[in-house]
Amino acid sequence: MIPSNSRKMKALYFDKKLELRKDYPIPVPAKNEALIKVTLAGICNTDKEIMNGYVPFTGILGHEFVGIVTECSQLEFIGKRAVGEINIGCGVCSLCKRGMQNHCPQRKTLGINGKDGVFSEYVTLPIENLLIVPDEISDEEAVFTEPLAAAFNILQNVEISKQDRVAIIGDGKLGQLIVRAVSTTLCDLTLIGKQEKKLELAQDFCKTMILNESDDLENSFDIVIECTGNDAALLFAGNIVRPKGTIVLKSTYAGQIKFNPSLWVRKEIRLIGSRCGHFAPALQFMRESRIDLTKLIDKTFLIDDWEIAFITAFSKGALKVLLKLTK
Amino acid sequence: MIPSNSRKMKALYFDKKLELRKDYPIPVPAKNEALIKVTLAGICNTDKEIMNGYVPFTGILGHEFVGIVTECSQLEFIGKRAVGEINIGCGVCSLCKRGMQNHCPQRKTLGINGKDGVFSEYVTLPIENLLIVPDEISDEEAVFTEPLAAAFNILQNVEISKQDRVAIIGDGKLGQLIVRAVSTTLCDLTLIGKQEKKLELAQDFCKTMILNESDDLENSFDIVIECTGNDAALLFAGNIVRPKGTIVLKSTYAGQIKFNPSLWVRKEIRLIGSRCGHFAPALQFMRESRIDLTKLIDKTFLIDDWEIAFITAFSKGALKVLLKLTK
Repeated sequence: MIPSNSRKMKALYFDKKLELRKDYPIPVPAKNEALIKVTLAGICNTDKEIMNGYVPFTGILGHEFVGIVTECSQLEFIGKRAVGEINIGCGVCSLCKRGMQNHCPQRKTLGINGKDGVFSEYVTLPIENLLIVPDEISDEEAVFTEPLAAAFNILQNVEISKQDRVAIIGDGKLGQLIVRAVSTTLCDLTLIGKQEKKLELAQDFCKTMILNESDDLENSFDIVIECTGNDAALLFAGNIVRPKGTIVLKSTYAGQIKFNPSLWVRKEIRLIGSRCGHFAPALQFMRESRIDLTKLIDKTFLIDDWEIAFITAFSKGALKVLLKLTK
Repeated sequence: MIPSNSRKMKALYFDKKLELRKDYPIPVPAKNEALIKVTLAGICNTDKEIMNGYVPFTGILGHEFVGIVTECSQLEFIGKRAVGEINIGCGVCSLCKRGMQNHCPQRKTLGINGKDGVFSEYVTLPIENLLIVPDEISDEEAVFTEPLAAAFNILQNVEISKQDRVAIIGDGKLGQLIVRAVSTTLCDLTLIGKQEKKLELAQDFCKTMILNESDDLENSFDIVIECTGNDAALLFAGNIVRPKGTIVLKSTYAGQIKFNPSLWVRKEIRLIGSRCGHFAPALQFMRESRIDLTKLIDKTFLIDDWEIAFITAFSKGALKVLLKLTK
């Protein structure tokens, strides 16, 4: 067992700006928590939005990870590779009791709200948040569990059937994962994006289309999934969805956007916000489908090279950028 | 039969500004249309939004009315009091064939888009749009059929059960009609508004509450119906609805509003736009409930006094203002 209260670790700490601290204390797990040695962590657009002030957060950033459990009161976890759900509910409110910890008003969220995140060599999480990673899934795949679970969560929030014409707007890393999740419904699926190269990554799973305003797609889709987080895309979604169709909002918007909701009223559109999802369906998908998610990795950097990692992650057209925390 | 192609009538014509024309030709009904002598017409907020440029419209304004059928190939209509649904579909597209004329991309809409409206002594409408007004319903009630049908349409778009905690934001004329429609579900209903006097008008049907931002209503409602059309109310709706709850958008927004949809994503809220409704449920409600809708009439003006009528209708706190077109 590591003497976790005396040793130090590297950590990317955010307090108005991000910096690498090399002497951050390794956290001491609470009674219900495990200590996890982080192997790989993913940089997410939400990290950028937090750095831009989307929520007031001070602490270690990062919420996508895979690691090895080093301390845990449930001994079967020790030494195992694990991923962890990011919301930590109060456990006593009516929402927590209904299994909706991710909507608990008192919740903490890993690397987002009130809880140190995973851009560090060690992290603690409640044991009940942990899932052991099956052997068939590599670390490079397992690190996608959190965003892939968010993608699958769309299927919890919206019924999508084989007959539905579905469009996904946004060919970035989130859109790519959503393509893979939604394609399991066998619906008539189209990815609309701006970059040929990224659209190619999705061609095994759906039709693809370069965003071109001259195309007449008005009223062409039953369901439109907006995952770019910009107002022009939201307006476009309202245009291409049919009357009484559904728009899924699956993105973090950094600031206020300007729009006129009258279009939604006139077309009697349904909008559905969708956020985090449970990890089990994502792990099951990775184990059973054997789809190679590592194609979505742009580059992996050591934590010491965090500055170039973040520049790469947030540059136009980047796919998933990973941080390697420990071996 | 009135020689409709030679006689003139009074009409409130909108072409960038509204004016009373006294020599507008009485319209000649097409083969599938009836000619209706308008008795009473209601001024709606949508009329204001059109005058403010919400949609490009030139012609006779107005879409809420009750009148007497004077010409019609179906003789059973002649001399009868009638109201009329306002959307006129192309009749051949897939939406029209599925009974969704109100979403036909080629549709005309009475006094709103491509079809002269009802602020005039006579109007034409397709016979299939007409419904005869039962004797139990007075003209002063029947003129509410269109907005009341829009209120009942919410129940078509959202399932509301007895167990649901429902809030309506906005105590104006639309909110008042929605209160009466939604109260038929026996749900736990609260009207939130700004004016004691208007809230009193709803007290037979629901709880009422003065909008006061110090009240802690966060996450208190399963369903929130926003019928004010302003951005502060939309933000408030997102605040008071529970996670995974529903917001109904039931208003015309004149311009762009500034908003951050992240709240909807974070709380996984559903937003549902709701527009026009079928008239039959509204007429049935008026006939059977015997609720006195005439309490919602602010004042009735002759068409010659249209200027003061519009000033009254669009003054803060006004209820329904009617125009008397013919006796």
